[in-house]
Amino acid sequence: MGLWRITLAYDGTDFAGWQMQSGRAARTVQGTLEATIARLGDGARVVVVGAGRTDAGVHALGQVASFRLDRELPSAELQRALNAMLPEDLRVLEAAPAPEGFHARKSAVSKRYRYELDTGPVQLPARRRVAGHLPGRLDAVAVRAVAELYCGRRDFASLASAGGSAKTTVRTVLRSEARFAGETLVYEVEADGFLRRMVRSLVGGLIAAGRGTLGIEDLRCALAACDRRAWPPPAAARGLTLVRVAYDGPRGPDVE
Amino acid sequence: MGLWRITLAYDGTDFAGWQMQSGRAARTVQGTLEATIARLGDGARVVVVGAGRTDAGVHALGQVASFRLDRELPSAELQRALNAMLPEDLRVLEAAPAPEGFHARKSAVSKRYRYELDTGPVQLPARRRVAGHLPGRLDAVAVRAVAELYCGRRDFASLASAGGSAKTTVRTVLRSEARFAGETLVYEVEADGFLRRMVRSLVGGLIAAGRGTLGIEDLRCALAACDRRAWPPPAAARGLTLVRVAYDGPRGPDVE
Repeated sequence: MGLWRITLAYDGTDFAGWQMQSGRAARTVQGTLEATIARLGDGARVVVVGAGRTDAGVHALGQVASFRLDRELPSAELQRALNAMLPEDLRVLEAAPAPEGFHARKSAVSKRYRYELDTGPVQLPARRRVAGHLPGRLDAVAVRAVAELYCGRRDFASLASAGGSAKTTVRTVLRSEARFAGETLVYEVEADGFLRRMVRSLVGGLIAAGRGTLGIEDLRCALAACDRRAWPPPAAARGLTLVRVAYDGPRGPDVE
Repeated sequence: MGLWRITLAYDGTDFAGWQMQSGRAARTVQGTLEATIARLGDGARVVVVGAGRTDAGVHALGQVASFRLDRELPSAELQRALNAMLPEDLRVLEAAPAPEGFHARKSAVSKRYRYELDTGPVQLPARRRVAGHLPGRLDAVAVRAVAELYCGRRDFASLASAGGSAKTTVRTVLRSEARFAGETLVYEVEADGFLRRMVRSLVGGLIAAGRGTLGIEDLRCALAACDRRAWPPPAAARGLTLVRVAYDGPRGPDVE
Protein backbone atom coordinates (compact mmCIF):
# COMPACT_ATOMS: atom_id res chain seq x y z
CA MET A 1 0.00 0.00 0.00
CA GLY A 2 2.22 2.79 -1.27
CA LEU A 3 1.53 6.40 -0.42
CA TRP A 4 1.76 8.76 -3.40
CA ARG A 5 2.10 12.47 -3.90
CA ILE A 6 1.08 14.03 -7.22
CA THR A 7 1.26 17.60 -8.52
CA LEU A 8 -1.73 18.66 -10.61
CA ALA A 9 -2.72 21.36 -13.09
CA TYR A 10 -6.33 21.90 -14.08
CA ASP A 11 -8.62 24.28 -15.87
CA GLY A 12 -11.33 24.77 -13.24
CA THR A 13 -13.91 26.16 -15.70
CA ASP A 14 -15.76 22.89 -16.22
CA PHE A 15 -15.27 21.47 -12.71
CA ALA A 16 -17.64 22.03 -9.80
CA GLY A 17 -14.57 22.62 -7.63
CA TRP A 18 -12.19 20.20 -5.93
CA GLN A 19 -14.38 18.53 -3.40
CA MET A 20 -16.82 15.70 -4.03
CA GLN A 21 -20.33 16.56 -3.02
CA SER A 22 -22.23 13.80 -1.30
CA GLY A 23 -25.38 12.78 -3.09
CA ARG A 24 -24.64 14.96 -6.11
CA ALA A 25 -23.33 13.89 -9.48
CA ALA A 26 -21.29 17.07 -10.01
CA ARG A 27 -18.01 16.77 -11.93
CA THR A 28 -15.32 17.51 -9.33
CA VAL A 29 -11.52 17.25 -9.50
CA GLN A 30 -11.41 14.92 -6.49
CA GLY A 31 -14.15 12.67 -7.87
CA THR A 32 -12.52 12.48 -11.31
CA LEU A 33 -9.17 11.57 -9.73
CA GLU A 34 -10.61 8.97 -7.34
CA ALA A 35 -12.50 7.19 -10.12
CA THR A 36 -9.42 7.23 -12.41
CA ILE A 37 -6.90 6.08 -9.78
CA ALA A 38 -9.25 3.27 -8.67
CA ARG A 39 -8.94 1.79 -12.18
CA LEU A 40 -5.20 1.29 -11.53
CA GLY A 41 -5.76 -0.58 -8.24
CA ASP A 42 -7.69 -3.64 -7.20
CA GLY A 43 -11.02 -1.86 -7.47
CA ALA A 44 -11.14 -0.73 -3.83
CA ARG A 45 -12.22 2.85 -3.21
CA VAL A 46 -9.32 5.31 -3.34
CA VAL A 47 -9.39 8.46 -1.21
CA VAL A 48 -7.54 11.44 -2.65
CA VAL A 49 -6.63 14.34 -0.34
CA GLY A 50 -5.96 17.73 -1.93
CA ALA A 51 -3.79 20.48 -0.44
CA GLY A 52 -6.37 23.14 -1.30
CA ARG A 53 -10.12 22.66 -1.70
CA THR A 54 -10.47 24.94 -4.71
CA ASP A 55 -13.93 26.36 -5.51
CA ALA A 56 -15.82 25.86 -8.76
CA GLY A 57 -14.08 27.75 -11.57
CA VAL A 58 -10.73 28.02 -9.73
CA HIS A 59 -7.70 26.75 -11.66
CA ALA A 60 -4.53 25.05 -10.50
CA LEU A 61 -0.97 25.04 -11.78
CA GLY A 62 0.52 23.32 -8.72
CA GLN A 63 -2.18 21.63 -6.65
CA VAL A 64 -0.79 18.72 -4.61
CA ALA A 65 -2.72 15.57 -3.75
CA SER A 66 -1.94 12.39 -1.80
CA PHE A 67 -3.46 8.91 -1.91
CA ARG A 68 -2.67 5.23 -1.29
CA LEU A 69 -2.49 2.67 -4.06
CA ASP A 70 -2.24 -1.10 -3.51
CA ARG A 71 0.10 -1.63 -6.40
CA GLU A 72 3.80 -1.15 -7.09
CA LEU A 73 4.73 0.85 -10.15
CA PRO A 74 7.38 3.33 -11.26
CA SER A 75 6.53 7.03 -10.82
CA ALA A 76 6.82 7.82 -14.53
CA GLU A 77 4.47 4.97 -15.34
CA LEU A 78 1.87 6.11 -12.79
CA GLN A 79 2.01 9.62 -14.26
CA ARG A 80 1.69 8.37 -17.84
CA ALA A 81 -1.16 5.98 -16.98
CA LEU A 82 -3.13 8.70 -15.19
CA ASN A 83 -2.64 11.28 -17.95
CA ALA A 84 -3.76 8.72 -20.54
CA MET A 85 -7.05 8.19 -18.66
CA LEU A 86 -7.76 11.67 -17.24
CA PRO A 87 -9.63 14.32 -19.25
CA GLU A 88 -7.53 16.97 -21.01
CA ASP A 89 -8.47 19.68 -18.50
CA LEU A 90 -6.79 17.78 -15.65
CA ARG A 91 -3.09 16.82 -15.89
CA VAL A 92 -0.59 15.14 -13.58
CA LEU A 93 2.63 17.19 -13.78
CA GLU A 94 4.59 15.03 -11.34
CA ALA A 95 4.16 11.81 -9.37
CA ALA A 96 6.40 10.54 -6.61
CA PRO A 97 6.20 8.12 -3.68
CA ALA A 98 5.54 9.99 -0.43
CA PRO A 99 6.98 9.14 3.00
CA GLU A 100 4.60 7.58 5.55
CA GLY A 101 2.70 10.29 7.38
CA PHE A 102 2.58 12.65 4.39
CA HIS A 103 -0.80 14.36 4.01
CA ALA A 104 -1.24 16.80 1.10
CA ARG A 105 -3.26 19.27 3.21
CA LYS A 106 -1.96 18.82 6.75
CA SER A 107 1.72 18.63 5.77
CA ALA A 108 1.57 21.81 3.66
CA VAL A 109 3.40 24.77 5.18
CA SER A 110 2.18 27.40 2.70
CA LYS A 111 0.12 27.91 -0.43
CA ARG A 112 0.39 30.51 -3.15
CA TYR A 113 -2.54 31.80 -5.21
CA ARG A 114 -2.61 34.15 -8.19
CA TYR A 115 -5.58 36.25 -9.23
CA GLU A 116 -5.76 37.88 -12.66
CA LEU A 117 -8.25 40.60 -13.47
CA ASP A 118 -8.61 42.22 -16.90
CA THR A 119 -9.82 45.79 -16.55
CA GLY A 120 -9.95 46.86 -20.22
CA PRO A 121 -13.31 47.53 -21.91
CA VAL A 122 -13.29 44.30 -23.98
CA GLN A 123 -11.85 41.01 -22.73
CA LEU A 124 -10.01 38.90 -25.31
CA PRO A 125 -11.79 35.53 -25.78
CA ALA A 126 -8.56 33.63 -25.03
CA ARG A 127 -8.50 35.29 -21.59
CA ARG A 128 -12.08 34.59 -20.58
CA ARG A 129 -11.34 31.28 -18.82
CA VAL A 130 -8.12 32.47 -17.24
CA ALA A 131 -8.90 35.94 -15.90
CA GLY A 132 -11.77 37.80 -14.34
CA HIS A 133 -13.14 40.84 -16.19
CA LEU A 134 -14.15 44.11 -14.58
CA PRO A 135 -13.98 47.06 -16.99
CA GLY A 136 -12.71 50.30 -15.51
CA ARG A 137 -9.33 51.65 -14.46
CA LEU A 138 -8.07 50.79 -10.96
CA ASP A 139 -5.86 53.14 -8.95
CA ALA A 140 -2.57 51.18 -8.97
CA VAL A 141 -1.10 53.03 -5.98
CA ALA A 142 -4.13 52.29 -3.80
CA VAL A 143 -4.23 48.65 -4.92
CA ARG A 144 -0.56 48.13 -4.08
CA ALA A 145 -0.95 49.81 -0.68
CA VAL A 146 -3.82 47.50 0.27
CA ALA A 147 -1.86 44.45 -0.92
CA GLU A 148 0.92 45.45 1.50
CA LEU A 149 -1.60 45.97 4.29
CA TYR A 150 -2.50 42.26 4.13
CA CYS A 151 1.02 41.08 5.06
CA GLY A 152 1.73 39.55 8.44
CA ARG A 153 0.05 37.45 11.11
CA ARG A 154 -3.47 38.51 12.12
CA ASP A 155 -7.07 37.48 12.59
CA PHE A 156 -8.73 37.42 9.15
CA ALA A 157 -12.24 36.79 10.50
CA SER A 158 -13.56 39.70 8.37
CA LEU A 159 -12.57 37.76 5.25
CA ALA A 160 -13.93 34.34 6.22
CA SER A 161 -17.01 33.24 4.30
CA ALA A 162 -19.70 31.31 6.11
CA GLY A 163 -19.41 27.56 5.86
CA GLY A 164 -15.68 27.30 6.53
CA SER A 165 -14.48 24.61 8.93
CA ALA A 166 -11.40 26.36 10.33
CA LYS A 167 -10.91 26.30 14.11
CA THR A 168 -9.11 29.62 14.14
CA THR A 169 -9.27 32.57 11.74
CA VAL A 170 -5.68 33.66 12.44
CA ARG A 171 -3.42 33.29 9.41
CA THR A 172 0.02 34.52 8.38
CA VAL A 173 0.26 36.18 4.97
CA LEU A 174 3.88 35.71 3.89
CA ARG A 175 3.69 37.58 0.61
CA SER A 176 1.05 39.82 -0.93
CA GLU A 177 1.93 41.63 -4.13
CA ALA A 178 -0.13 43.40 -6.77
CA ARG A 179 1.28 44.44 -10.13
CA PHE A 180 -0.21 45.68 -13.38
CA ALA A 181 0.63 44.20 -16.77
CA GLY A 182 -1.06 46.59 -19.21
CA GLU A 183 -4.72 46.65 -18.24
CA THR A 184 -4.44 43.44 -16.21
CA LEU A 185 -4.12 43.33 -12.42
CA VAL A 186 -2.01 40.35 -11.30
CA TYR A 187 -2.20 39.67 -7.58
CA GLU A 188 -0.09 37.00 -5.87
CA VAL A 189 -0.57 35.98 -2.27
CA GLU A 190 1.14 33.33 -0.18
CA ALA A 191 0.07 32.32 3.32
CA ASP A 192 0.42 29.45 5.78
CA GLY A 193 -3.25 28.76 5.10
CA PHE A 194 -6.38 30.39 3.74
CA LEU A 195 -9.91 30.65 5.09
CA ARG A 196 -12.85 29.83 2.85
CA ARG A 197 -12.94 32.30 -0.10
CA MET A 198 -10.22 34.34 1.62
CA VAL A 199 -8.24 35.07 -1.57
CA ARG A 200 -11.36 36.27 -3.37
CA SER A 201 -12.14 38.50 -0.36
CA LEU A 202 -8.59 39.88 -0.38
CA VAL A 203 -9.10 40.73 -4.07
CA GLY A 204 -12.49 42.26 -3.19
CA GLY A 205 -10.58 44.66 -0.91
CA LEU A 206 -8.09 45.51 -3.69
CA ILE A 207 -10.95 46.29 -6.08
CA ALA A 208 -12.78 48.48 -3.54
CA ALA A 209 -9.57 50.48 -2.99
CA GLY A 210 -8.70 50.58 -6.71
CA ARG A 211 -12.11 51.96 -7.57
CA GLY A 212 -12.01 54.44 -4.70
CA THR A 213 -15.08 52.93 -3.02
CA LEU A 214 -13.09 52.44 0.20
CA GLY A 215 -9.85 54.04 1.37
CA ILE A 216 -6.94 52.19 2.90
CA GLU A 217 -7.98 53.35 6.38
CA ASP A 218 -11.52 52.01 5.83
CA LEU A 219 -10.05 48.65 4.91
CA ARG A 220 -7.64 48.67 7.86
CA CYS A 221 -10.64 49.20 10.19
CA ALA A 222 -12.76 46.61 8.39
CA LEU A 223 -9.93 44.10 8.78
CA ALA A 224 -9.57 44.89 12.49
CA ALA A 225 -13.33 44.65 13.04
CA CYS A 226 -13.19 40.83 12.64
CA ASP A 227 -16.70 40.97 11.22
CA ARG A 228 -17.33 39.81 7.71
CA ARG A 229 -20.21 42.27 7.19
CA ALA A 230 -17.57 45.04 7.35
CA TRP A 231 -15.68 43.72 4.33
CA PRO A 232 -16.46 44.35 0.61
CA PRO A 233 -17.83 41.40 -1.42
CA PRO A 234 -15.43 38.73 -2.72
CA ALA A 235 -14.26 38.82 -6.35
CA ALA A 236 -15.59 36.22 -8.81
CA ALA A 237 -13.94 32.77 -8.80
CA ARG A 238 -12.90 33.15 -12.44
CA GLY A 239 -9.35 34.52 -12.44
CA LEU A 240 -8.07 32.55 -9.43
CA THR A 241 -5.30 29.93 -9.70
CA LEU A 242 -3.64 27.81 -7.01
CA VAL A 243 -0.04 28.24 -8.12
CA ARG A 244 2.09 26.32 -5.61
CA VAL A 245 1.95 24.37 -2.38
CA ALA A 246 5.09 24.30 -0.26
CA TYR A 247 6.21 21.58 2.15
CA ASP A 248 9.18 21.42 4.52
CA GLY A 249 12.11 19.72 2.85
CA PRO A 250 12.06 18.39 -0.68
CA ARG A 251 9.14 16.00 -0.17
CA GLY A 252 7.27 17.13 2.92
CA PRO A 253 8.08 17.76 6.57
CA ASP A 254 8.68 14.15 7.43
CA VAL A 255 11.36 13.43 4.86
CA GLU A 256 14.83 12.76 6.37
CA MET B 1 -26.31 52.22 -46.25
CA GLY B 2 -23.03 52.67 -44.38
CA LEU B 3 -20.08 50.40 -44.99
CA TRP B 4 -18.36 49.21 -41.80
CA ARG B 5 -15.03 47.68 -40.91
CA ILE B 6 -14.66 45.75 -37.65
CA THR B 7 -11.65 44.08 -36.01
CA LEU B 8 -12.45 40.78 -34.30
CA ALA B 9 -10.93 38.39 -31.77
CA TYR B 10 -12.29 34.91 -31.28
CA ASP B 11 -11.55 31.60 -29.65
CA GLY B 12 -11.98 29.23 -32.59
CA THR B 13 -12.35 26.10 -30.44
CA ASP B 14 -16.14 26.03 -30.51
CA PHE B 15 -16.61 27.44 -34.01
CA ALA B 16 -16.79 25.34 -37.19
CA GLY B 17 -14.51 27.93 -38.81
CA TRP B 18 -15.24 31.32 -40.33
CA GLN B 19 -17.34 30.44 -43.31
CA MET B 20 -21.05 29.62 -43.33
CA GLN B 21 -21.75 26.22 -44.78
CA SER B 22 -24.80 26.06 -46.99
CA GLY B 23 -27.40 23.62 -45.81
CA ARG B 24 -25.62 22.96 -42.51
CA ALA B 25 -26.47 24.31 -39.09
CA ALA B 26 -22.82 24.53 -37.97
CA ARG B 27 -21.86 27.37 -35.64
CA THR B 28 -19.58 29.60 -37.72
CA VAL B 29 -18.07 33.01 -37.00
CA GLN B 30 -19.58 34.50 -40.16
CA GLY B 31 -23.03 33.06 -39.40
CA THR B 32 -22.95 34.27 -35.80
CA LEU B 33 -21.94 37.78 -36.94
CA GLU B 34 -24.52 37.99 -39.74
CA ALA B 35 -27.37 36.95 -37.43
CA THR B 36 -26.27 39.41 -34.74
CA ILE B 37 -25.69 42.38 -37.05
CA ALA B 38 -29.06 41.78 -38.73
CA ARG B 39 -30.74 42.46 -35.38
CA LEU B 40 -29.35 46.02 -35.52
CA GLY B 41 -30.74 46.71 -38.98
CA ASP B 42 -34.17 46.57 -40.59
CA GLY B 43 -34.17 42.78 -40.67
CA ALA B 44 -32.71 42.46 -44.18
CA ARG B 45 -29.98 39.86 -44.62
CA VAL B 46 -26.50 41.20 -43.81
CA VAL B 47 -23.47 39.82 -45.64
CA VAL B 48 -20.23 39.88 -43.67
CA VAL B 49 -16.94 39.49 -45.55
CA GLY B 50 -13.90 38.29 -43.56
CA ALA B 51 -10.27 39.00 -44.46
CA GLY B 52 -9.28 35.39 -43.74
CA ARG B 53 -11.52 32.33 -43.96
CA THR B 54 -10.13 30.66 -40.85
CA ASP B 55 -10.63 26.89 -40.45
CA ALA B 56 -12.44 25.20 -37.58
CA GLY B 57 -10.41 25.56 -34.39
CA VAL B 58 -8.34 28.50 -35.66
CA HIS B 59 -8.32 31.59 -33.43
CA ALA B 60 -8.16 35.28 -34.26
CA LEU B 61 -6.69 38.27 -32.47
CA GLY B 62 -7.03 40.67 -35.39
CA GLN B 63 -9.44 39.30 -38.00
CA VAL B 64 -11.04 42.09 -40.05
CA ALA B 65 -14.56 42.01 -41.48
CA SER B 66 -16.65 44.38 -43.57
CA PHE B 67 -20.42 44.72 -44.03
CA ARG B 68 -23.17 47.22 -44.87
CA LEU B 69 -25.74 48.37 -42.33
CA ASP B 70 -28.84 50.42 -43.19
CA ARG B 71 -28.66 52.48 -40.03
CA GLU B 72 -26.63 55.41 -38.78
CA LEU B 73 -24.91 55.01 -35.44
CA PRO B 74 -21.68 56.03 -33.72
CA SER B 75 -18.78 53.54 -33.92
CA ALA B 76 -18.53 53.11 -30.17
CA GLU B 77 -22.23 52.35 -29.97
CA LEU B 78 -22.05 49.77 -32.75
CA GLN B 79 -19.14 48.07 -30.97
CA ARG B 80 -20.94 48.08 -27.61
CA ALA B 81 -24.21 46.80 -29.10
CA LEU B 82 -22.48 43.94 -30.91
CA ASN B 83 -20.42 42.88 -27.88
CA ALA B 84 -23.56 42.91 -25.75
CA MET B 85 -25.27 40.46 -28.13
CA LEU B 86 -22.36 38.30 -29.31
CA PRO B 87 -21.21 35.22 -27.38
CA GLU B 88 -18.19 35.61 -25.09
CA ASP B 89 -15.87 33.70 -27.45
CA LEU B 90 -16.32 36.34 -30.18
CA ARG B 91 -15.48 40.01 -29.49
CA VAL B 92 -15.43 43.21 -31.53
CA LEU B 93 -12.17 45.01 -30.67
CA GLU B 94 -12.77 47.98 -32.96
CA ALA B 95 -15.48 49.32 -35.26
CA ALA B 96 -15.14 52.14 -37.77
CA PRO B 97 -16.90 53.38 -40.90
CA ALA B 98 -15.07 52.19 -44.04
CA PRO B 99 -14.65 54.14 -47.28
CA GLU B 100 -16.73 53.03 -50.30
CA GLY B 101 -14.98 50.22 -52.11
CA PHE B 102 -13.41 48.74 -48.99
CA HIS B 103 -13.54 44.94 -48.95
CA ALA B 104 -12.07 43.12 -45.92
CA ARG B 105 -10.53 40.38 -48.06
CA LYS B 106 -9.77 42.02 -51.42
CA SER B 107 -8.38 45.24 -49.91
CA ALA B 108 -6.01 43.39 -47.57
CA VAL B 109 -2.33 43.71 -48.51
CA SER B 110 -0.99 41.17 -46.02
CA LYS B 111 -1.98 38.83 -43.20
CA ARG B 112 -0.01 37.58 -40.25
CA TYR B 113 -0.55 34.22 -38.55
CA ARG B 114 1.01 32.76 -35.41
CA TYR B 115 1.31 29.06 -34.63
CA GLU B 116 2.12 27.83 -31.13
CA LEU B 117 3.20 24.27 -30.47
CA ASP B 118 3.92 22.87 -27.00
CA THR B 119 6.54 20.13 -27.19
CA GLY B 120 6.86 19.18 -23.50
CA PRO B 121 5.62 15.78 -22.29
CA VAL B 122 2.50 17.17 -20.56
CA GLN B 123 0.48 20.12 -21.88
CA LEU B 124 -0.90 22.50 -19.25
CA PRO B 125 -4.73 22.53 -19.36
CA ALA B 126 -4.77 26.33 -19.77
CA ARG B 127 -2.77 25.89 -23.01
CA ARG B 128 -4.89 23.20 -24.62
CA ARG B 129 -7.18 25.60 -26.52
CA VAL B 130 -4.38 27.97 -27.49
CA ALA B 131 -1.52 25.73 -28.60
CA GLY B 132 -1.01 22.46 -30.39
CA HIS B 133 0.73 19.64 -28.50
CA LEU B 134 3.34 17.34 -29.95
CA PRO B 135 5.63 15.86 -27.29
CA GLY B 136 9.28 15.54 -28.23
CA ARG B 137 12.20 17.93 -28.64
CA LEU B 138 12.57 19.74 -31.96
CA ASP B 139 15.96 20.73 -33.39
CA ALA B 140 15.78 24.54 -33.06
CA VAL B 141 18.54 25.21 -35.61
CA ALA B 142 16.82 23.10 -38.29
CA VAL B 143 13.41 24.67 -37.53
CA ARG B 144 14.79 28.21 -37.85
CA ALA B 145 16.61 27.36 -41.09
CA VAL B 146 13.40 26.05 -42.68
CA ALA B 147 11.46 29.11 -41.49
CA GLU B 148 14.02 31.26 -43.37
CA LEU B 149 13.72 29.07 -46.46
CA TYR B 150 10.04 30.06 -46.76
CA CYS B 151 10.77 33.78 -47.24
CA GLY B 152 10.28 35.44 -50.60
CA ARG B 153 8.07 35.21 -53.69
CA ARG B 154 7.54 31.72 -55.11
CA ASP B 155 5.04 29.12 -56.22
CA PHE B 156 3.69 27.39 -53.10
CA ALA B 157 1.70 24.74 -55.01
CA SER B 158 3.31 22.01 -52.84
CA LEU B 159 1.59 23.53 -49.80
CA ALA B 160 -1.87 24.06 -51.28
CA SER B 161 -4.56 21.74 -49.95
CA ALA B 162 -7.21 20.48 -52.35
CA GLY B 163 -10.38 22.52 -52.40
CA GLY B 164 -8.78 25.94 -52.50
CA SER B 165 -10.19 28.49 -54.93
CA ALA B 166 -7.03 30.48 -55.68
CA LYS B 167 -6.27 31.27 -59.34
CA THR B 168 -2.54 31.23 -58.77
CA THR B 169 -0.41 29.47 -56.16
CA VAL B 170 2.31 32.14 -56.22
CA ARG B 171 2.59 34.03 -52.92
CA THR B 172 5.08 36.36 -51.27
CA VAL B 173 6.12 35.46 -47.72
CA LEU B 174 7.22 38.75 -46.17
CA ARG B 175 8.28 37.40 -42.80
CA SER B 176 8.78 33.87 -41.49
CA GLU B 177 10.26 33.49 -38.03
CA ALA B 178 10.46 30.61 -35.57
CA ARG B 179 11.50 31.02 -31.96
CA PHE B 180 11.39 28.84 -28.88
CA ALA B 181 9.96 29.98 -25.54
CA GLY B 182 10.91 27.17 -23.18
CA GLU B 183 9.39 24.02 -24.68
CA THR B 184 7.04 25.99 -26.94
CA LEU B 185 7.68 26.66 -30.61
CA VAL B 186 6.23 30.02 -31.67
CA TYR B 187 6.11 30.52 -35.43
CA GLU B 188 5.03 33.80 -37.04
CA VAL B 189 4.46 34.18 -40.74
CA GLU B 190 3.27 37.14 -42.79
CA ALA B 191 2.42 37.00 -46.51
CA ASP B 192 0.46 38.89 -49.14
CA GLY B 193 -1.97 35.97 -49.06
CA PHE B 194 -2.21 32.34 -48.05
CA LEU B 195 -3.40 29.25 -49.88
CA ARG B 196 -5.82 26.88 -48.21
CA ARG B 197 -4.15 25.35 -45.09
CA MET B 198 -0.87 26.90 -46.19
CA VAL B 199 0.20 27.99 -42.68
CA ARG B 200 -0.47 24.54 -41.28
CA SER B 201 1.58 23.05 -44.14
CA LEU B 202 4.43 25.48 -43.46
CA VAL B 203 4.36 24.30 -39.83
CA GLY B 204 4.26 20.69 -41.06
CA GLY B 205 7.59 21.41 -42.79
CA LEU B 206 9.06 22.92 -39.61
CA ILE B 207 8.04 19.84 -37.61
CA ALA B 208 9.50 17.42 -40.19
CA ALA B 209 12.82 19.30 -40.07
CA GLY B 210 12.74 19.69 -36.26
CA ARG B 211 12.24 15.96 -35.80
CA GLY B 212 14.88 15.11 -38.37
CA THR B 213 12.41 13.31 -40.65
CA LEU B 214 13.39 15.58 -43.55
CA GLY B 215 16.48 17.73 -44.04
CA ILE B 216 16.44 21.31 -45.31
CA GLU B 217 17.51 20.15 -48.78
CA ASP B 218 14.62 17.65 -48.90
CA LEU B 219 12.22 20.47 -48.08
CA ARG B 220 13.79 22.81 -50.61
CA CYS B 221 13.23 20.16 -53.30
CA ALA B 222 9.72 19.38 -52.10
CA LEU B 223 8.90 23.10 -52.29
CA ALA B 224 10.34 23.37 -55.82
CA ALA B 225 8.45 20.25 -56.94
CA CYS B 226 5.12 22.17 -56.87
CA ASP B 227 3.42 18.90 -56.01
CA ARG B 228 1.55 18.60 -52.75
CA ARG B 229 2.30 14.87 -52.46
CA ALA B 230 5.96 15.86 -51.96
CA TRP B 231 5.20 17.87 -48.81
CA PRO B 232 4.84 16.56 -45.22
CA PRO B 233 1.30 16.60 -43.70
CA PRO B 234 -0.11 19.87 -42.30
CA ALA B 235 -0.03 20.53 -38.54
CA ALA B 236 -3.30 20.39 -36.56
CA ALA B 237 -5.55 23.50 -36.63
CA ARG B 238 -5.28 23.90 -32.87
CA GLY B 239 -2.45 26.33 -32.20
CA LEU B 240 -3.10 28.65 -35.14
CA THR B 241 -4.14 32.31 -34.71
CA LEU B 242 -4.82 35.01 -37.30
CA VAL B 243 -2.94 37.86 -35.63
CA ARG B 244 -3.23 40.86 -37.95
CA VAL B 245 -4.50 41.96 -41.33
CA ALA B 246 -2.77 44.92 -42.96
CA TYR B 247 -4.28 47.43 -45.41
CA ASP B 248 -2.68 50.27 -47.32
CA GLY B 249 -3.03 53.52 -45.45
CA PRO B 250 -4.81 53.84 -42.14
CA ARG B 251 -8.15 52.45 -43.36
CA GLY B 252 -7.48 50.54 -46.55
CA PRO B 253 -6.10 51.29 -49.99
CA ASP B 254 -9.00 53.47 -51.09
CA VAL B 255 -8.92 55.94 -48.22
CA GLU B 256 -8.26 59.60 -49.10
